[in-house]
This record gives sequence, C-alpha cells and structure tokens, in this order.
Amino acid sequence: METIGVGMLGYAFMGKAHSNAFRKIAYMTWPPPLEPRLVGICGRNREAVDEAAERYGYDYATDDWQRLVDDDSIGLFDNGGPNALHAEPTIAAARAGKHVVCEKPLGRDAAESFEIWRAVEETGVKHLCAFNYRFVPAVRLAREMIEAGELGEVRHFRGRYLQDWGDDPSLDTWRFDPAAAGSGALGDLMAHVVDLARFLNGEPGSVQGFAHTFLPGRKVDDAVEAAVVFENGSVGTLEATRFAHGRRNALQWEINGTKGSLSFDMERMNELQVFRADGDRARGFKTVLVSEADHPFWEHWWPPGHIIGWGDTFVHELHHVLEAIANDRPIAPYGATFEDGYRAAEICDAIVRSGESGAREQIRYRQASA
Amino acid sequence: METIGVGMLGYAFMGKAHSNAFRKIAYMTWPPPLEPRLVGICGRNREAVDEAAERYGYDYATDDWQRLVDDDSIGLFDNGGPNALHAEPTIAAARAGKHVVCEKPLGRDAAESFEIWRAVEETGVKHLCAFNYRFVPAVRLAREMIEAGELGEVRHFRGRYLQDWGDDPSLDTWRFDPAAAGSGALGDLMAHVVDLARFLNGEPGSVQGFAHTFLPGRKVDDAVEAAVVFENGSVGTLEATRFAHGRRNALQWEINGTKGSLSFDMERMNELQVFRADGDRARGFKTVLVSEADHPFWEHWWPPGHIIGWGDTFVHELHHVLEAIANDRPIAPYGATFEDGYRAAEICDAIVRSGESGAREQIRYRQASA
Amino acid sequence: METIGVGMLGYAFMGKAHSNAFRKIAYMTWPPPLEPRLVGICGRNREAVDEAAERYGYDYATDDWQRLVDDDSIGLFDNGGPNALHAEPTIAAARAGKHVVCEKPLGRDAAESFEIWRAVEETGVKHLCAFNYRFVPAVRLAREMIEAGELGEVRHFRGRYLQDWGDDPSLDTWRFDPAAAGSGALGDLMAHVVDLARFLNGEPGSVQGFAHTFLPGRKVDDAVEAAVVFENGSVGTLEATRFAHGRRNALQWEINGTKGSLSFDMERMNELQVFRADGDRARGFKTVLVSEADHPFWEHWWPPGHIIGWGDTFVHELHHVLEAIANDRPIAPYGATFEDGYRAAEICDAIVRSGESGAREQIRYRQASA
Amino acid sequence: METIGVGMLGYAFMGKAHSNAFRKIAYMTWPPPLEPRLVGICGRNREAVDEAAERYGYDYATDDWQRLVDDDSIGLFDNGGPNALHAEPTIAAARAGKHVVCEKPLGRDAAESFEIWRAVEETGVKHLCAFNYRFVPAVRLAREMIEAGELGEVRHFRGRYLQDWGDDPSLDTWRFDPAAAGSGALGDLMAHVVDLARFLNGEPGSVQGFAHTFLPGRKVDDAVEAAVVFENGSVGTLEATRFAHGRRNALQWEINGTKGSLSFDMERMNELQVFRADGDRARGFKTVLVSEADHPFWEHWWPPGHIIGWGDTFVHELHHVLEAIANDRPIAPYGATFEDGYRAAEICDAIVRSGESGAREQIRYRQASA
Repeated sequence: METIGVGMLGYAFMGKAHSNAFRKIAYMTWPPPLEPRLVGICGRNREAVDEAAERYGYDYATDDWQRLVDDDSIGLFDNGGPNALHAEPTIAAARAGKHVVCEKPLGRDAAESFEIWRAVEETGVKHLCAFNYRFVPAVRLAREMIEAGELGEVRHFRGRYLQDWGDDPSLDTWRFDPAAAGSGALGDLMAHVVDLARFLNGEPGSVQGFAHTFLPGRKVDDAVEAAVVFENGSVGTLEATRFAHGRRNALQWEINGTKGSLSFDMERMNELQVFRADGDRARGFKTVLVSEADHPFWEHWWPPGHIIGWGDTFVHELHHVLEAIANDRPIAPYGATFEDGYRAAEICDAIVRSGESGAREQIRYRQASA
Repeated sequence: METIGVGMLGYAFMGKAHSNAFRKIAYMTWPPPLEPRLVGICGRNREAVDEAAERYGYDYATDDWQRLVDDDSIGLFDNGGPNALHAEPTIAAARAGKHVVCEKPLGRDAAESFEIWRAVEETGVKHLCAFNYRFVPAVRLAREMIEAGELGEVRHFRGRYLQDWGDDPSLDTWRFDPAAAGSGALGDLMAHVVDLARFLNGEPGSVQGFAHTFLPGRKVDDAVEAAVVFENGSVGTLEATRFAHGRRNALQWEINGTKGSLSFDMERMNELQVFRADGDRARGFKTVLVSEADHPFWEHWWPPGHIIGWGDTFVHELHHVLEAIANDRPIAPYGATFEDGYRAAEICDAIVRSGESGAREQIRYRQASA
Repeated sequence: METIGVGMLGYAFMGKAHSNAFRKIAYMTWPPPLEPRLVGICGRNREAVDEAAERYGYDYATDDWQRLVDDDSIGLFDNGGPNALHAEPTIAAARAGKHVVCEKPLGRDAAESFEIWRAVEETGVKHLCAFNYRFVPAVRLAREMIEAGELGEVRHFRGRYLQDWGDDPSLDTWRFDPAAAGSGALGDLMAHVVDLARFLNGEPGSVQGFAHTFLPGRKVDDAVEAAVVFENGSVGTLEATRFAHGRRNALQWEINGTKGSLSFDMERMNELQVFRADGDRARGFKTVLVSEADHPFWEHWWPPGHIIGWGDTFVHELHHVLEAIANDRPIAPYGATFEDGYRAAEICDAIVRSGESGAREQIRYRQASA
Repeated sequence: METIGVGMLGYAFMGKAHSNAFRKIAYMTWPPPLEPRLVGICGRNREAVDEAAERYGYDYATDDWQRLVDDDSIGLFDNGGPNALHAEPTIAAARAGKHVVCEKPLGRDAAESFEIWRAVEETGVKHLCAFNYRFVPAVRLAREMIEAGELGEVRHFRGRYLQDWGDDPSLDTWRFDPAAAGSGALGDLMAHVVDLARFLNGEPGSVQGFAHTFLPGRKVDDAVEAAVVFENGSVGTLEATRFAHGRRNALQWEINGTKGSLSFDMERMNELQVFRADGDRARGFKTVLVSEADHPFWEHWWPPGHIIGWGDTFVHELHHVLEAIANDRPIAPYGATFEDGYRAAEICDAIVRSGESGAREQIRYRQASA
C-alpha cells in the first residue's frame, strides 16, 4: 500500500485529535487511499513532544518546525499549533512541496488568512483548513439534502456555538493572548459557525453585529452576536460565546426552507432533525440517527445505531485529504480549502467592524492580485 | 360575590381566548377576586358576533363599540380587535372610566402606542397589554428565579419566535394589511420576544438588525433579525419569523448567567430547562415540569404533572387584572402595562430603523410631556 | 338549544375536572350536541359540597346521592366519587333512566365491575367509563393511524404508568384503604395502561406478573409488573407504579408494527412520536405536535401549535357522551363503555392472580347470563 | 513499555471492534498498562482473515485457532467468534495459560456458560465476558452514584434492548442458527439487559415471562418479555426484541430509588438522565452530558462536551483487562467475569423456562463442585 509521510506541528489537543485520526484511517477506512506514516512531530516543550512522538508513534520529535519542512519523507504537513504559528510554517511547508492541513482559524485575521491562502495556493499543493464539523455525518447529510433541493428555497439560517468555560478570570492560555490567538470566541467558535453557514447556505452578503468582552482585563472577545443577510435571500442570526453555562460544545444550527427544515446540535452530533413540509398528517421534526448504511461516511463504521464520537470527524476529514492527494481530486467543496479559511475570517472581521462602527458591513472578499 | 361587567371587542381568535378565560376564572380560580359578568361583545360581522354572544354568554352583541363604551354596567373593556382598532376604542373606554385590557401590539407603531399609553395613563384606570406569555407558569418561575439571583449576573439572552404559516402568497387577512396591522412578524411575534426579554432581562440598550419581507407583493415584514446589547451588560440575538417550517408556535428563549442558565420553548410550555453551575458531578439541564404545588399559578389547577394548555395563560392573565382591580394593586411588574406595550413597540421600531439605515440604534423611550 | 341536566357525585379532583369540562363544552365545542345544565352535586362533606355547588354553578348541593337519582331534571349522572361508591349510585341512576358516566376503575375488582356493567347494560342507558386518556388527541390519532393500517401488523405494545407520590408512609387517603379503593396502583394506574392497550392493540390473551407492595403496613399494592401476550400475536410489558421518583404523570406507551412505530408520554401529551418504515434516507421518529386542523378534536381549539392541557381531555370525553345521547349513537369504540371498564378490571385481577399463583393467567371474560 | 501479545478469534463485527480498541489503547490511554501487540487473528474464511490481518496489523492470519492457543507469544486470547465457538477455544487458551476475553453470550445456554466459567476459573487466568455496556461512561457513572447511595433504596429497574432489523424472513446468518447462536434476541440482547440489571441493581430473585418467535420458520426467539423481582426488593420489567421499528440500538434502562432516579438510552450514550428528590423547587431530570474531567474514563479523551462513540466502550473495556493483567487486579466488579457471563445466561434461561411452563422461575445459580 502506498504511504505518505506526515509531519505534525502541535502535540496537545489538536495534535492528539489529528494523530488519532491518522492512525485510525490506516484500518478503519479500508483500504485507505494512502497509508499515513507518522514521521515527525514538532512542539516547543521538548519533554512533551518527545512523549507525544512515543505515544502516537512518530519517528522523531523536534522543537524546530523547519526540520519537518526540510524532511523529504514528509508529504503532508499538518499544522495544529497556536494561531500565531499558522502562517509561516504552513507557507514554508507548501513552498517545500508538501500538501498542507491547517487548523482553524487559518490566520489571526482576514489579512493574515488571505496571505496564507494566496501563498499556499500559488504552490499548487492541496490545502485544507480543518473545519472538521463539515465532516460530521449529520452535517454532510444536511448538505446533500440541501444540494438535492429537499429544502426548496432557503429562508433562514440561524447558527450559534455555545460553550461555557470562559467565565473565569484566572484562565491564562494562549487562547486569551491576542498576539497568539488573534481573537477569542470569534476565531475559535464563530469561525465554525460561519463556515457551516457558508457550507450549507452559501455566502453571506452583509452582517450587523459586534464582538463583546465581558471580563475586565480580558484582551480578546468573549462573545459575538450578529444578524445576517445571505446572498440567496435568506436571513438569520449568528452567535458565538464562551459564556453559556450548561452548553459544553453546543454548535447548533437550524435552516428553514420552503420545503422543509433541518436542525442540529453538536452535543447530539449523531442526530439530524428533519422536517418535511410534505402534507403528511403526522408531521413533525424527525430525529434521524445518522448511522445507516446509506448515510455519509458510514461505510467506515458499525451497524446502524452504533454511534461515533467527536474524534471521528477527523478521521473523515483527513481521509478526505488523503483521497484528494492520492487521486488528485479537489478538496472543495466538501472539504474547506484555505480559501474557505480566509473567507470565514473575512466574515468574522466584518462583524467586528460592524460592532466598532455601528454600521452594516457588506461582505467583500479580496481579490487575488494578477 | 362582587362582579365586574366585561365588554369585549373582537370575537375571533382573541375573543375566544379571552372569553374562555373569563368563564374559567369564575370557578377555576376560587374564590375569584371579582366574578366576571359577560355584558357585551362587539364585532363588525353582525351574524358572527350574534353567534359569539350566544356561544360565550354575553348579554348582547353589537357592531358599534361605542355602545360598550357607553354601557355603565361594563367595568372592564377588553380589546381583542385588529391592531388598527386598538387606539380609539381603548382610549375612549378608559376615558369613560373603564379598566382596559388591550391585545398586543398595543399600537401599530411606537408613536401610536405611546399615544395610547399616555392617554389611558392619564385616566387613572388599570391597563394591561396582553403579553400573555408572561403568564406561562414556566416563564413566571424563570422570572422568580432570576429575581432571587439564582442566575447570578446575566451574560446572554437569546430569544426567537418561530412560526411557519406565512410562506403562502395567497394568504389575505388583516394581518398582511399595513393599515390594519401596522407590521407583520414584527408586531405579531417580535413584540412578544421583546417583552419577554424585558420581563426577564431588563432594558435593551441598542439593537442592530432589520425587518425583512420574503414574498414579492407582501406589504408587511415576514421576519425580523437583530443583535442586541442590554443595559445590564448582557448581549444576544432576537428573531421573529413566520417562515420556519416545522415550528408552529415556537417562542423560544435562553438566558445564561454566571450561576446558571434557563431555556424555554412555548411548544413545550409546561417545561423549563434549568442549569445550575453548582459543581454537582451530575450536572446538566433539568427538564422541570412546572406543575408543582409550589409553582406559579398552580394553586388553580391539578395535581403535579397534569399539564395545562396555551389557553390557560389567559386565565392567569385576566385573573391578574381582576385582582389588580379588586384590590387596587398595580398591574406591573408581573403584568405588562400599556407602558410595557409602548416600550416593546419602541424596540421593534428601532430594529426597523436599524435595517433601513444600516446603523446601530440606541433604545430611547419618549418622555411623557409635563 | 336543547339541554341536559347533570347530577355529579364527587366534588374534589374528579368533580372539578368533570365540572370544568361540562362548563367548557357549552362554548368551546360549538354548537354542543346538548347544553349541559349543572343541576345537583353530591358529597359527604356538607360545607365543601355547598361551596362546590356555588363554585361550579350547580343549582343545589346534597349529601344524599339518592336525591340526584330521584331528580327528574337530571338526565346524566356522573360518578366521580371514591371507588366504593361507584356501584350502588351508578346502578340506581341507570335504573332511574339516567345516562351514566363513572370514573375508573369501574368497580373495586372484576366481580364488582361485571355486576355494575351488567346491571346498567340491562337498563339501556348510555354508559361511559371515564378512561379519559382515550380522548387525548395524540392517542386518538394513534388509534386512527392503527385502524388505517399505518403500522401494519403489530409486534409489540409496552405500556407503563409511572407516578412518584406513593413513597410516603404518612399518606392516608381513601386511596390506601382497600375497602374504599379496592386496590392501589392497580386500579388507579394499571387500569389506564390496560385500557389503552386494549384501545390501541386489542385484547390481551394472557399475562404473567404480579402486584407488589413496598411499604410495611400499606394495605394496597404500590406497583404492578407484567409480561403480556396479545391475541393479535404481539407481546410486551405492562407496568404501573407510584414509586418512580421524577415521573409525575408519565403514562407512556410504545407500539411497534411491521410498518412503523408510535410512542407517547402523557407528560408531553400534545406530542406523538411517529416512525414510518418507509425507506426514507432521513428516517427517524417524528415529534408530531398534535394540534393541526386535521387532527382529532382540534376543531374545538386553537391555531396549530397552541397546545391544550390535561383537563381538556374531559371536554372531549364528555362531549362524546353528549353526542352519543343527543344522536343515540354508541359510546364504543372511541369511548370506553362499562364493558371496557369491566374488561380492564378482569385483566388487572389476572395479574394479581398470576402474582399469587406464580402461574400464567389466561384472560377470560365472564359471560352475561341469559 | 511492556507489551502483551494478542490473539484474536473473529475478524468481522467484533473482530473489528476489538482490534480498533487494542490499537487505540496504545496511545489514547497513556501510558497504557501494557502495550497490546497484535500477534495473530483467526477466521474460517482464509481470504477475509488474511485481509483482516493486514488491515489491523496482526503478524499473521490463520484458519486454525489452535495455532493461537499454541503460540507462546500470545498472552491474551480474545474470542469474538460466533457463540458456538466460544467454549472450546476459550477453554483451551486458558488452559494454555493465556488470559481470556470472550464475547457475550458466554455460552449458548446456562449449562455451557457454566462449563466455560468453571473450566477457565480453574486455570487461574484473568477472564472477562465482553459486556461492553458496563464501560459506557454514563453507565459507570450510574454505578458509582448507586454505590455511593445517591439513589437511596432502589424500588424499580426497568430495562429493554430494542432493535429493529429482525423483521425480515430472508435474513440468514449464524445469528438465526440455533446450533451456532444458541438463541436469538435472548443471548444477543437480553443478556446485555440482564447484565446491566445485575451491575446496577444486584441479583434478580425470580422472573415471570417468556421468549417469543414472530416469524414462521425462524428457529430462534425474536423477542423476550419478563416481569422481575430483585433480591433487594425492587421490581420491574425486562425486554429484548429485534422487532421494534425505529429503534436501532436502543438499550434503555431506568432505575428509581427513594432518593432519585436514573435513566439511560444507548442511542444517546453520552447522556445520563438524573433526578434527585432533593426538594429543589426546580426539580426534574437532568440531561447530564457525561464528558467532564471528573467523569469515568474521561481522562483518556477530550475536553468536556466532545463526545465519544460506541466503539470507544471497547477501549475502556480492554484497557480494564490490560490493567488487571499488568497489576494482577480483579476483573470484577467493574468488568464482567465469566461468572457474570454464566449468571446472565442462567437468568435468560429462567425466562425461557417460565415461558414454557407458565410458572414463576426462581433464579438459582449452580454451585461449583468441590
């Protein structure tokens, strides 16, 4: 079986999630498009990265990402580091001819994200921005139903990502450092909302809203609120917060169309709520347990009803990348490219600007210069 | 038992709901503060209003509301007519010394609502704007919990009222006539969202958003979307629509505080979702079936778990009015006064203006002139 | 409008529920088949029954049920008294030519229930045993769907009625007195389960199970458990208890057929869960909000989504009785007759016998003697 | 790191589930008690087992289980083959000094299960019967809460395992062959219900019920129904079926005690419903998302709210086995031993006997002969 060498930047939360996925791809998706070989992993804490290499089975650990870039046995560079470390290593890896995966948000703002996208796009390698929620079976099923016209004309998209761990002034991680993170709930959570809005409902045309910080002294935003108009004529609300007690990982969205509605909550990620305006006397939202043989990604898994977990979304996502590499197929539209990463950032920034100016902001994407 | 004569304007949806409530008050709330005597009912369709009088037991029917105003045996004038018929009869009744109940929205816009409030306030009668959802036991319980500080400092309020009957161009009722209704989803649905936001979370400080019309030729708004900042520092979203297939009467809100969260859906009106950030290892939202002996309004009803219906909210609401009249107690804060009706309209109008100008709108209430 | 005089035995829980229903029928169901006129109400506590007469509007109160039996202006005798008071007054009223309604359980055991049924049946009057849950819109919809073959061949019926108020040794009402009540959870709760099993799935053929008492000194059963085989070949479980903390009025049942399934919980009585094995890729249980214009009983109520309460089931039930009287139509099959009341008792008794003997009990109904 | 060689019998559903778990243990549980080394895998279809060896990374494939038994590099023999292949290879492996894991049901009936248990027990190796649902975090949390007395005295246990794939006469697998499977829903599904009943609520004392076959010509049972009395004085129902349309993997149980209740559904395996009878005015079942740092097994996984899947229960289960081996700790009480496997079979057989005789069956466990 053909293999591909993987170089991983980051060994903590995302490093674990991606490494687990690479290992499971080798046997859960069978046969895999390419067998991932874990070559090198990079992190700043030498002891921790050594342990991570042993734990996940990388050939070596390093505290110098340049070593991964220079390693010819690595064909895929996966960046799961802090946001401030997305641009330089990812661009360097792409310029070294490696395919690249980068965690979201792509850059710390739209300008940086644009720069990353353009630099990488020019190299011709495959690039995926790791909006993993596109790879939840229920989300993909939703996309397929919408593409097939099952919702008719869309009237509403309302999305929110609610978490509750931010209401603690003593928290002190890179996620609260503007230089490292770029933003707070905006890039961490709203970026996901915006990506799913685009994935399921197309481009937003304008936003009115704001980012907000609750805690005195906190240097990034804690919550983001917006009203939105989409180019397809639908309207809705977008929200992200780290201050919603009781909501642990509640990425929720609902979409209403002329023929039906869909509703989703990541805390019940194996379920999709489906309403069909079909005139059945017994009408209502169906709780669809998305685990059937004819459901997305399910060829990799278990008999119906035997549900999967959050970590498995990365199996689907990275499998998609490997398939794109193996067969020279595009990442888009089911995977998010760096262009999608950039576009999400542009929308996020527009909400911030709307908050600063008080004015409605049109979404305008930068053009690649000739 | 002391009685009070009731004059009712309107015999259709709201006329039925209010008449039912007056009749049930006489025996379900025991002893009632005042026994309602159904004196006269008014409507434009002579045949229909005659039937309504017979059906609900009014002494007489009329197509001239002035007759109700002139009838000295009527002590309470209840206006359940179309929005355009709110101002004149209600003011006239109050000036004739009758206590007044008026369906929401109070007027067709903030200006008219202000005028109604001021004119009626000057007469000294009791006035209630029929935001009946304040009288859902779960909503009252929420209010009591918030007042008792059980949520701590509030961070978020998100409210939406989703219905799905508007997506039909052939619909032709007064509700789509701007002259009769003033607005569409705005006054019909958003007014409820805004009133509950104020009831549970206090005054909004500013809004950014818009009203939107989907159907060509429709003369009122179909949906309203907004981001909102409250004076207490909390933020959130507000939404109302008649275009959400599968949502029949989904007035939903959630409120997150530093000590806990509450969540509600009118389609499951007997339930309140309660999260307490109390460190219990088994933490999560409780589904509270609001039907216990120590729950609001339950002294009127059944053993625990024997739930009530939408129509019963009017029993609580009009009972509250009768109690205020009988004992000269204020309608506020648990009932909505005409001032509350006006304030809801001011916020609704601000969203519309924000949509027209694209700018953030501060909520500023008109002052009663000296 | 033609009227019918009503005589009511009992003024507490069931007296309130039935009186409320008679009053609402007069205007909520329009035009009513007969207008109920509340003539007399009977109870042993003279002060309480006097107040009840005033409260609900009965012409007179009495502590002698014979007075109701002797009153020619009474056409319908409604027995909501304790179980021990079901037989004699109900039979006497029927023999006096009055139509009769009797709360469940019909008698304190199968023998007494049989006697009541036979005695009343011979008089030719209409008789209804007040299994009110047949008159929940969701339950009626289920029945209609089953009758229409929408479930195919039934495989399973599992029913349970869970309450939680019994776990208190200090409780001391007639419900714990074997002479007054006949049994505990058996007649109070299991009778409902058994009636719905018969209503939705037909006759049970045999049961294996038992009644059980948890509290030392308690003289009636606290819980009942059984496995059951139905004559149509389906199988399942039946359960009733007053010892299920957190379940307040949880009458729950599920029925599985070759074409689909239905599921119900009385605590969410406005909802029916519907699964159709129709091959839709998006398959799952629908949460049907049973409140549409084409749903059972909804012609009496509100716009869709505006739900009703437990008390409203009695409006449907007693309306059914009035319609049967007015138009000489049968109570069965949608209403429960005294024969249904007797049959439920026979099944309940069979479970008790199975517990005593340890043996499977066949359900055998007594034959009316020639 | 110390390793242990694994020999696997079976490569299909359970072979995949167990192999996946062994591989994930090596890095998700860190450091693992022993690093599993996949040595050999056995199956009858030569081509399929060759592929499985390559896929999951076993050193070799074989169609002769004796080879695994004879292989000294194998320290743990894992039997995921059809039920008829449980006894001989498992006993042989244990006698060869290997620790053993065996899928449930342990044997095809109580007699065979007893024989397997006794034979293996005598060898002194560790043995686990793979009742994996004990290793769902929510189930373990329930056990811990019950052990800590949080439910008080237990009154009820009701359990059911509902699936819906059996209603198809064309199905033809070893699961419908009595010689290979021993039984149908009984050993496949009811065994799980019975094991969880014992795990959470202790020993059943007697059962009344039956096994039932719907389809003509089917040679195993399709459904099982029982009423049960437990030795601790609680009572309830037990059910298993493959004929419940819409229920895909619905292992559901509820337990009611004097201080509270717990409820669970495997289709929402990350959630535990918790009711505390603590007098809180806001009382109700909490939906606990069992994914917190202080929840069972969560040290291996992700931040709160990032849920896991069905396959991950095997990670916990086999990790438990490795820990028991590495540190010579007992499998019981959190893992199911072969004695637990035998006891489940004894209870299952008692239900069958009750169905045949119609009589209540006492649960009596065989004694190991001296």
